[in-house]
Amino acid sequence: MAVSSKIEDFIERSSWIRRMFEEGARLKAEHGAENVYDLSLGNPNLEPPLEFKQLLADLAVDQRPGLHGYMPNAGLPEARAAVAAGLSTEQEMEVPPENVVMTVGAGGGLNVVFKAILDPGDEVIVPRPYFVEYDFYVDNHGGSLKTVAAGPDFALDPEAIRAAIGPRTRAVLINSPNNPTGRVYDEQSLLQLGRVLEEAWVSTGRVIYLVADEPYRKIVYDGVSVPPVMPLYANTIVVSSHSKDLSLAGERIGYVGVSPQSSDVSRLMAGLILANRILGFVNAPAIAQRAAARLQGITVDLSPYARNRRALYQGLTDMGYEVPMPDGAFYLFPKAPGGDDLAFVKRLQEELVLAVPGRGFGEPGYFRLSYAVPYETVEGALPIFARARTESTG
Amino acid sequence: MAVSSKIEDFIERSSWIRRMFEEGARLKAEHGAENVYDLSLGNPNLEPPLEFKQLLADLAVDQRPGLHGYMPNAGLPEARAAVAAGLSTEQEMEVPPENVVMTVGAGGGLNVVFKAILDPGDEVIVPRPYFVEYDFYVDNHGGSLKTVAAGPDFALDPEAIRAAIGPRTRAVLINSPNNPTGRVYDEQSLLQLGRVLEEAWVSTGRVIYLVADEPYRKIVYDGVSVPPVMPLYANTIVVSSHSKDLSLAGERIGYVGVSPQSSDVSRLMAGLILANRILGFVNAPAIAQRAAARLQGITVDLSPYARNRRALYQGLTDMGYEVPMPDGAFYLFPKAPGGDDLAFVKRLQEELVLAVPGRGFGEPGYFRLSYAVPYETVEGALPIFARARTESTG
Repeated sequence: MAVSSKIEDFIERSSWIRRMFEEGARLKAEHGAENVYDLSLGNPNLEPPLEFKQLLADLAVDQRPGLHGYMPNAGLPEARAAVAAGLSTEQEMEVPPENVVMTVGAGGGLNVVFKAILDPGDEVIVPRPYFVEYDFYVDNHGGSLKTVAAGPDFALDPEAIRAAIGPRTRAVLINSPNNPTGRVYDEQSLLQLGRVLEEAWVSTGRVIYLVADEPYRKIVYDGVSVPPVMPLYANTIVVSSHSKDLSLAGERIGYVGVSPQSSDVSRLMAGLILANRILGFVNAPAIAQRAAARLQGITVDLSPYARNRRALYQGLTDMGYEVPMPDGAFYLFPKAPGGDDLAFVKRLQEELVLAVPGRGFGEPGYFRLSYAVPYETVEGALPIFARARTESTG
Repeated sequence: MAVSSKIEDFIERSSWIRRMFEEGARLKAEHGAENVYDLSLGNPNLEPPLEFKQLLADLAVDQRPGLHGYMPNAGLPEARAAVAAGLSTEQEMEVPPENVVMTVGAGGGLNVVFKAILDPGDEVIVPRPYFVEYDFYVDNHGGSLKTVAAGPDFALDPEAIRAAIGPRTRAVLINSPNNPTGRVYDEQSLLQLGRVLEEAWVSTGRVIYLVADEPYRKIVYDGVSVPPVMPLYANTIVVSSHSKDLSLAGERIGYVGVSPQSSDVSRLMAGLILANRILGFVNAPAIAQRAAARLQGITVDLSPYARNRRALYQGLTDMGYEVPMPDGAFYLFPKAPGGDDLAFVKRLQEELVLAVPGRGFGEPGYFRLSYAVPYETVEGALPIFARARTESTG
């Protein structure tokens, strides 16, 4: 066999998702990409802020030596300092630069965290629906993902998490604003989650981490704000990236920030920095770290996302789709008319609309739409959603 | 415990190396960095070629959309094509772009390879001395490293490798030009290794990969050339980076290239691309990929390394040190006078010379010197090497 048994299995299991993507690619090739309404990709379509281009221009003439060479595995001091300052504001708690590791995106950051904390057989609890890569990120390091149902409208359900905690629980992983639902967890439920974790920690004597994956923190609408998580529970690790807020997904820049109140912080930081090195990341890319350092207070203009969100939510709701208004990110997660997400997504494909079935997020019966697209894509897709719903429920 | 048992163990085991580094940092703080002769770092001290700065200037004014956004996990088409063309020349075999995955450095690339091919308990054979990170890269994915002795003057010893091959052997890992010895394996011994692997493959029916880690391929002296490896054996995977030849170590750009003759190539490529995604790399950083695409034929000016190599080799040999002349990379790996590498490295530290003990590479009794340093560092260190040798053998 050319690959390991596990990878062979992963390739097979993911084949139906791959087939859907291949079908999308085939449709674009056949009908022209401009005639396909692709709402399937979680790919920011806005350009990075102008300040990023200015940074490149500055680096092009910067003669200081070593700008693109090796550096400490944890990252450039100025990047760690800038991120720590940003985190301190967002988390309403003083996070020192030593508690920050610059990473290859949030995906790299989550792998670094799980490599550092998981013993074989450890469990990570996550509410459904969830970003499907979490399965791999936990499995890579010998752990297993344990999913729990969300509350109504995909709210956080701390009691469901309490019921799932067992002797092998090592972490609870949350993602707010959420991919795929767009939900932002409210302060009340987060406070309650903090109490649940505190009680479990005290009763078992075993550190359980709250891992908050927050790449969409700055992508929120209608004045919603994302509550800080560090004040709620001591053993909190925040993972984020600038893929969305600076539209730099291809440059792979993210970070891990640890609460100053976490148990044995210096040992945890040593573990995270070692994991960043030995997984082969070594350090986050240098130019992208300089962007993180200089652009920390900046966010892309969200008005195109906001306009799409309103149009798509309003349009679908008017047609009778059941979907909660998303607070953040750039996704909607409606119920699939007729109940079969795979069948419904295939029906959409017939008229060149691409979406992702909910089972791709561990939640069959729903489908995900990304509105990180040109407004014309939303406009063009809406009549097709109307027809597809009438047919599927008719 | 704040971290997993394994990470706890890694932190403890690496603590004496860390103490040496910390001692170096302490010496620099106490005496001023300019008064310390630091020959311990495998960090290119040359600047990237001017073409890299030109690329940044061009990107600063490039208005095409999506330049810094998501892309296929395998990399930008133009980067894969340029690397494939470069590999085809170096390997004297047509390598198509589809056989290339752009990675986060060679460290990322090796993790991607081992994630894709190793089942739990699989073994990877490597000649000693070896780059110490290989231990982690193999262990990360459930494999174990099996080391074999090198031949005289650190030459490749295919018969030692043959003797080490067993039912769990999945790969043989070679590194030429070698870190830490500077040895380039000659064509004859590589041909013999190819035959050994071919025979083992035929007799067991199990694919054994030859993984060639080649980040120093272009860093060679005195007209030495590094023989191609793909023509010697079908199941060959080349891993490399532009950390050294373009001095872009901090930008994390490398690649994996698979021989077109490898078994079930399309399945192997699918596994490598999946591994690149699920380990959280997702894709190699976009700007650095554009550098790989544009600068494929370019190498930093090696004359500073060549001058240092000659001065350090000549100086040490004249004093009586036993050290083979390195063919490539920027390291010397002399025998430690007195035989105790740790004691000798500590003796050097007393006069502010930093080196790495051979046990850091699985070969006690030697020490590694990096000559990727200013010429003045070599000049200043030589008299100290003379005194330290006299004392240690006296």
